[in-house]
Amino acid sequence: MQWNLTKELLSEIRDWIADGKDTALLEVTKDIHPADIAELINELRREEAAYVYRLLEEERAAEVMLELDEDVREKLLSSLTSREIADFVIDNIDSDDAADVISELPEDKQEEVIALLEDEEQASDIIDLLTYEEGTAGALMGKELVKVNLNWTVAQAIREMRRQAEYIDNIYTIYVVDDKDVLLGTLSVKSMIFASSSMRTMIKELVREIKVRKVLDTASAEEVANIMKKYDMVVLPVVNESDVLLGRITIDDIVDVIQEEADKDYQMASGISEDVESGDSIMTLTRARLPWLLIGMMGGMISANIIGVFDITENPQMAVFMPLIAAMGGNVGVQSAALVVKALANKSALDESLAQKLAKELGVGLFNGLICSLIIFGVSMLFHFEYHLSLTASIALFSVIIFASFFGTWIPMTLHRFKIDPALATGPFVTTLNDIFGLIIYFTIGHSILSL
Amino acid sequence: MQWNLTKELLSEIRDWIADGKDTALLEVTKDIHPADIAELINELRREEAAYVYRLLEEERAAEVMLELDEDVREKLLSSLTSREIADFVIDNIDSDDAADVISELPEDKQEEVIALLEDEEQASDIIDLLTYEEGTAGALMGKELVKVNLNWTVAQAIREMRRQAEYIDNIYTIYVVDDKDVLLGTLSVKSMIFASSSMRTMIKELVREIKVRKVLDTASAEEVANIMKKYDMVVLPVVNESDVLLGRITIDDIVDVIQEEADKDYQMASGISEDVESGDSIMTLTRARLPWLLIGMMGGMISANIIGVFDITENPQMAVFMPLIAAMGGNVGVQSAALVVKALANKSALDESLAQKLAKELGVGLFNGLICSLIIFGVSMLFHFEYHLSLTASIALFSVIIFASFFGTWIPMTLHRFKIDPALATGPFVTTLNDIFGLIIYFTIGHSILSL
Repeated sequence: MQWNLTKELLSEIRDWIADGKDTALLEVTKDIHPADIAELINELRREEAAYVYRLLEEERAAEVMLELDEDVREKLLSSLTSREIADFVIDNIDSDDAADVISELPEDKQEEVIALLEDEEQASDIIDLLTYEEGTAGALMGKELVKVNLNWTVAQAIREMRRQAEYIDNIYTIYVVDDKDVLLGTLSVKSMIFASSSMRTMIKELVREIKVRKVLDTASAEEVANIMKKYDMVVLPVVNESDVLLGRITIDDIVDVIQEEADKDYQMASGISEDVESGDSIMTLTRARLPWLLIGMMGGMISANIIGVFDITENPQMAVFMPLIAAMGGNVGVQSAALVVKALANKSALDESLAQKLAKELGVGLFNGLICSLIIFGVSMLFHFEYHLSLTASIALFSVIIFASFFGTWIPMTLHRFKIDPALATGPFVTTLNDIFGLIIYFTIGHSILSL
Repeated sequence: MQWNLTKELLSEIRDWIADGKDTALLEVTKDIHPADIAELINELRREEAAYVYRLLEEERAAEVMLELDEDVREKLLSSLTSREIADFVIDNIDSDDAADVISELPEDKQEEVIALLEDEEQASDIIDLLTYEEGTAGALMGKELVKVNLNWTVAQAIREMRRQAEYIDNIYTIYVVDDKDVLLGTLSVKSMIFASSSMRTMIKELVREIKVRKVLDTASAEEVANIMKKYDMVVLPVVNESDVLLGRITIDDIVDVIQEEADKDYQMASGISEDVESGDSIMTLTRARLPWLLIGMMGGMISANIIGVFDITENPQMAVFMPLIAAMGGNVGVQSAALVVKALANKSALDESLAQKLAKELGVGLFNGLICSLIIFGVSMLFHFEYHLSLTASIALFSVIIFASFFGTWIPMTLHRFKIDPALATGPFVTTLNDIFGLIIYFTIGHSILSL
């Protein structure tokens, strides 16, 4: 049942494209979901992609466009005329998706496409949505929804809903508004189905939960995601400050937000600076990975100079524990930073302040530091390292763990205060800084102990 | 509109509990969502939590139970009798949630609770669901759904649906089955509302998409999440091998799966071994972080011995570039591993084989290695480091980058082959190994160049 794009099928399709076998191509794309066609097109070369795309019937073509990878979509869009984009794509999709597609076009093409739209309401909806900044509830919402007036009867409401729902795939909730479009409540679809036998019932008799859960159009995508996750909602109404119903956000868009947010954090933690996949080209992968490596190198050169300053040739045996100190500083720092990043993502009014967090980190650092430094002292004596060296390693490790706990907590909190993504702190950046500070601590302690 | 638990409110509520002010407690919990009450109870001490919980009315109490943190729920459940659990909790929630709650009880209490359930159908549903292994579609599905027979009229269907939907909050899709419960198609709720004027229409005339997207009960949670994400579904039917409709999985459960999966990967990448939050106690946090630190320490001790073997006192100046080599090996390894982990999570039939991935990593490694090692050579000459040392650092860096790219790709692929979570490879484990191998490479190259 699930369509599967295999390597064999892909190369067969490529042959069909080369030979212009349209019937075979139409046959294979006929019964599958637009998301599957998009998966196929993502794998094709640019001219191949355009060829297959032009074969699709209008409505499916529009849906396929939405499912494509961003870079592939951009290329395809640039090969379509404004008229084609308006008639084939925009005319067949929801307003929020339409605004997304249009926002990807060059500015003059944007205006052309909007001017070519026949449905004036649609055009004004899109213009409206384009004014919202990316990452706000307004930019995520669609204008398509089913709303009924409090003073209608069920019969009237069903008539109106039939008109409104013509272009809507799924009705999750019916919104109840007053004459000024102020959101007053919701109706479950269930109640409409079952109420339909008594067509004269007034909507106001059916309406539930006068306190509707809703968000302002200016709310952040993160806030929207947190609300929908917490209250298990599949659709969330968006209002302006006067409580006028503007649109609705559906869970599929929020699933994407959650996934993107998670991917971004994971990427930052692993030192990759662009949204790349292992399938991307060698050049793209190199470019995405190089920036962090350069930061790491800079850190390494600074470390090299620090070691030079402390003159390792005087106490060459100190080199022995350098990797241990550096590694532990890095590990502890990343652990601390990751906990802060997670806490900031799920923030509540009950959250601890920076001072409280630092105090707690001090506690955890003391425990872990004590345990680790005792073990190191014991093990290194066991391995017959020199007593003073073992002592140095042990005291330095303890200090580095405490320092890295603090530093790993403070950095993401500070980034957050300056509106920079705190997840940056879990990447190679903090690790590198911890390496450097760790070495300075180690050598400072080493020099005072070994020169005793 | 959004309820906010502030520190002031929390301490006020604690006072009310201490003073037994039930009216005030009822007032504050009356109009808020069960998820908000759960948030409150999560913050209370055990006896306080039980006190507030017993004040709640039955249906809300059940929903609150579902929203609690796992450890809090466990404590609360242990303070309720089997009779209370059966009557208050299980009787008021969906079968999938009921199975989850029951599975958390000790085994003899499980049987007691099930035996006490009055609704026999519910009891058998729960027993059925308990047989599924965690992480499968069967364990995620709920038994509550609305299904109609192909041969019914709309009027008949509405009558039946009214009965079925009594305990269902939201109807997303109506499933159409034959007499043997084999899933044949779906009906949109929309079509039911609008068809309701002609009560004699046959269901088979309304049914859409004979090819319904569905999953087997044995499918993995990951697979379910991928399908629902890809096809933007809010509900997915679950069938057995004979296509008999068993239940349905709703998007809210899948959102949780996606979030947990992402959190787990992030935690592994940042070296935290348990599901902890920064709000947890110092002991819990210490315990979650210590295991990885111990691994890091072991690595550090091995490094120390390697440095001892290569006798750093002979060429003490080699210490200068040790941190750089170790850091770069770690960074490159984690980058490579993270890309593999991401690729495995979104696997398709088109995926590259291990050989192809390694070949590509070789390409990326060559580029990054060449750029980095040239820079290092230039910069270290600029800083007046010795020519042979600069050459050593440069060649070693190049080799370490290539090695770490390979190793970072190979480890997660191998873990995956042995059914171990590949995300393990992005944590301190691979970083530590890369540190060690990096040092060996560095010293081997150093010794052959410096002893020339």
